[in-house]
Amino acid sequence: GVLGSGDFARSLAIRLVCSGFKVVVGSRNPKRKASLFPAAAEVTFQAEAVKKADVIFVAVFREHYSTLCELADVLAGKILVDVSNNTEINHHKESNAEYLASLFPACTVVKGFNVVSAWTLQSGARDGNKQVLICSNNQEAKRIVAEIAQIMGFTPVDMGCMSSACEIENIPLRLLPAWKIPIFLALGLFLCFFTYNLIRQVIHPYIREQKNKLYKIPIEVVNTTLPCVSYVMLSLVYLPGVLAACSQLYYSTKYRRFPDWLDQWLQHRKQIGLLSFFCAALHAVYSLCLPMRRSHRYLLIETAVKQAVEKKMTIWVEEEVWRMEIYISVGIIALGLLSLLAITSLPSIANSLNWREFSFIQ
Amino acid sequence: GVLGSGDFARSLAIRLVCSGFKVVVGSRNPKRKASLFPAAAEVTFQAEAVKKADVIFVAVFREHYSTLCELADVLAGKILVDVSNNTEINHHKESNAEYLASLFPACTVVKGFNVVSAWTLQSGARDGNKQVLICSNNQEAKRIVAEIAQIMGFTPVDMGCMSSACEIENIPLRLLPAWKIPIFLALGLFLCFFTYNLIRQVIHPYIREQKNKLYKIPIEVVNTTLPCVSYVMLSLVYLPGVLAACSQLYYSTKYRRFPDWLDQWLQHRKQIGLLSFFCAALHAVYSLCLPMRRSHRYLLIETAVKQAVEKKMTIWVEEEVWRMEIYISVGIIALGLLSLLAITSLPSIANSLNWREFSFIQ
Amino acid sequence: GVLGSGDFARSLAIRLVCSGFKVVVGSRNPKRKASLFPAAAEVTFQAEAVKKADVIFVAVFREHYSTLCELADVLAGKILVDVSNNTEINHHKESNAEYLASLFPACTVVKGFNVVSAWTLQSGARDGNKQVLICSNNQEAKRIVAEIAQIMGFTPVDMGCMSSACEIENIPLRLLPAWKIPIFLALGLFLCFFTYNLIRQVIHPYIREQKNKLYKIPIEVVNTTLPCVSYVMLSLVYLPGVLAACSQLYYSTKYRRFPDWLDQWLQHRKQIGLLSFFCAALHAVYSLCLPMRRSHRYLLIETAVKQAVEKKMTIWVEEEVWRMEIYISVGIIALGLLSLLAITSLPSIANSLNWREFSFIQ
Repeated sequence: GVLGSGDFARSLAIRLVCSGFKVVVGSRNPKRKASLFPAAAEVTFQAEAVKKADVIFVAVFREHYSTLCELADVLAGKILVDVSNNTEINHHKESNAEYLASLFPACTVVKGFNVVSAWTLQSGARDGNKQVLICSNNQEAKRIVAEIAQIMGFTPVDMGCMSSACEIENIPLRLLPAWKIPIFLALGLFLCFFTYNLIRQVIHPYIREQKNKLYKIPIEVVNTTLPCVSYVMLSLVYLPGVLAACSQLYYSTKYRRFPDWLDQWLQHRKQIGLLSFFCAALHAVYSLCLPMRRSHRYLLIETAVKQAVEKKMTIWVEEEVWRMEIYISVGIIALGLLSLLAITSLPSIANSLNWREFSFIQ
Repeated sequence: GVLGSGDFARSLAIRLVCSGFKVVVGSRNPKRKASLFPAAAEVTFQAEAVKKADVIFVAVFREHYSTLCELADVLAGKILVDVSNNTEINHHKESNAEYLASLFPACTVVKGFNVVSAWTLQSGARDGNKQVLICSNNQEAKRIVAEIAQIMGFTPVDMGCMSSACEIENIPLRLLPAWKIPIFLALGLFLCFFTYNLIRQVIHPYIREQKNKLYKIPIEVVNTTLPCVSYVMLSLVYLPGVLAACSQLYYSTKYRRFPDWLDQWLQHRKQIGLLSFFCAALHAVYSLCLPMRRSHRYLLIETAVKQAVEKKMTIWVEEEVWRMEIYISVGIIALGLLSLLAITSLPSIANSLNWREFSFIQ
Repeated sequence: GVLGSGDFARSLAIRLVCSGFKVVVGSRNPKRKASLFPAAAEVTFQAEAVKKADVIFVAVFREHYSTLCELADVLAGKILVDVSNNTEINHHKESNAEYLASLFPACTVVKGFNVVSAWTLQSGARDGNKQVLICSNNQEAKRIVAEIAQIMGFTPVDMGCMSSACEIENIPLRLLPAWKIPIFLALGLFLCFFTYNLIRQVIHPYIREQKNKLYKIPIEVVNTTLPCVSYVMLSLVYLPGVLAACSQLYYSTKYRRFPDWLDQWLQHRKQIGLLSFFCAALHAVYSLCLPMRRSHRYLLIETAVKQAVEKKMTIWVEEEVWRMEIYISVGIIALGLLSLLAITSLPSIANSLNWREFSFIQ
């Protein structure tokens, strides 16, 4: 059974019908809404729908849960699946599912399907995230809903008892939480180094020698800034591990919890490392673009003309040649190694490595 | 039980034996074929094999289904698993599984395992596609076959009732169907823009000024063509979303189906976007190769010599310098952003994002 | 029940409690160890813990298995889960699980959870490898442990009967076994070609013409070596397939096993191909860096000066121009195609292709 006639209720009904279930939809206005649902689903009044179904998906907003109270008698003993989402993280004190359970103490409430979008339900679970997180205080009800999810083509994941409902409801609202701190860190570092390089490469020559080097801002200044950011970020990946080891040595125990800031830092290492790689890759592309620029060409021609007029036939400086060759060579090798690290952090590859292989590559 | 002694029957028997099942193979010529099967599998005549088994894999070509009719009596009440594939999409009116079911009305037919290759069966399911799509009209038989698949190390996916058999049989025959239209589109656009650029950069100068610029064809003409294709493809990714929104506003409903062409277009957006990224990445590599060419070098030296002979010491054009710096800089940033988009379209990463994060990145 | 109070026992208890199980921990010194375990887990003496539990995780080193013998009476009839790992591949004659089974013939032993790290247990199974490989001679015990693993958020994989225990215990010890031969092959080829190119480009000109070209070693010599390695590796990917086909034609049968060396070779094709791609990509980056070098710049200016002094206005050599344009153009196209091959070898993409599509792309 499905209570509600919104977008999600509709997609849920379509998917259930496609998976071979008998579906009955409960609506306040079954005649007007019937056309929205597939022909195989029976659309009727809420009370009648509830009578006919054992498992009932409550696809209704939290604000309207109380309107279902008149159905309390017919709902008694049934399994209610709360599929609702919030619009803000921790908006209400108790999770929607716990609120529903408090309204209908005679029912078994299961939280689930809220991480799946209406679109995923309709288009099938092949693409996109297939996991359906489920929690309930009743093991048997959880098992039944997990089985329904499995038959619908999803991968049910047991998240334990009802107290996890709040966590499950927050999942669709999170926005890359692990990336926030590393990204702001990278932006901050970029700004600092960019200012320093701007002063050094553009403003200082202008003040001292009145040379207009403004054209260096979009590429050359950015290009000297990126590797600095990349280096600092890379060192920030390996530093917390050292600090953690020191802390363990100092307290001579492995079981003491790290302070919160260190714990947070340890958990953000992967993101910091990937941003470091991103800066290094951008630095590589910027460097490769240097000889393409007009300014590079003009400087080259000017030097050649100057030399030709002065009849200087050779300008070869062995030291400068060697410095550049080694510099580029080391840069390419470093980029190659960082690429391997970045590739092994892809989920599908990380999953195929065991712990020992992962440490070896790191 | 396995009926048949071909490559697939053999691989199936090996895998079943390895997964701890008792296997009996039915063959028309058990003595000659016994050596092909693992020692743990019993190879005997078809009628005897069928008697001993409850679940029977029919690893026989559709053309030979009728030869099994003599076994109809012993087969009655057993579960038949149709593992057959076709050689053409929609070759026969009814699917192989439905045809088998019509021949043996007293049996329960389950379609499955056809998407798995003989090679995957033998080498184990760790690498390659682990999904086994299953459909049947009998829930209990489907459950038994799904359990067998699970024990063999595959992930059974319930595809509903027998009417899905046709769809399942077409899966191993499909050849990147979602990519066909986008690839032809990209090729068509490439040809158009290539012709235009060829005329503009090579043929026109030749006719007007008799200058031989043919050397520009392999790199420069291709390099000016690629970003045009990339831009048009990128706009084609975002256009259908706008059209869909307009259509929803016009009909003021979300529930009206889009016209077929728009629906198709919306479903191909990911592929069009990836081809756009591929063109952009190729354009980047082509551009980076420009200063490596002999022609670039010769033109540079020629300009320098001309300037030196005329004793012009400076050729710096501030406007051209700035145009190029900004052009390259914007290009690198665009490529960086497109790369992020391309990476998030990898299945394993897309699966770890929720809907809100995915929209945010897009 | 969990026997043991080490790091793994602790993580296991935490995870089990979080998944909603009642956990009782058996320790030799319950008072001292109780603080290490979550409050919801009951920590008591070993004999008492065993009495209260039906499924007992033996989180004890193999060396201490014999100390559990005093519990043999209370353990009788229970399911023991062996979670132990070895420190060396095939260190003992029989696997830990088989040794445990021989010590406690009255118990049902299941091997499992050893591929999961203590860290994964604590941090949840969302990231990292979710598979838990399970084997046992008792189907029912295996089913119970698989169900526990599922509820804990892992994906149980049935590995058959107890004889697979040895294989499962070796998994966490393996270190990229499929990569060893291809990597040594690549290094060997690199050394050979590097020596040849070093003699040809640096030592020979020095001996014959006393020219110091040592600066070419870090970039130019490496850059001419990489494509050679890449080509040979790529041909080694396709050669074994041809040899296998020849062998099948020669013996006119598909069912004859290939000789061991050919079998090994066929299985390493993917790794050889990826290393070939890695060399090709490095070659591309090295080539793109060529015009960035000081040496390139100096040679250019020297040529320009020489031409200007001699008043030669043109140095255009049509043949050299064309050779370079075509050379670069073909290189880019080859790299683009190899990139597609490399991308389709990512596990998550390879899984979404059927056999026909995979062959088509290859």
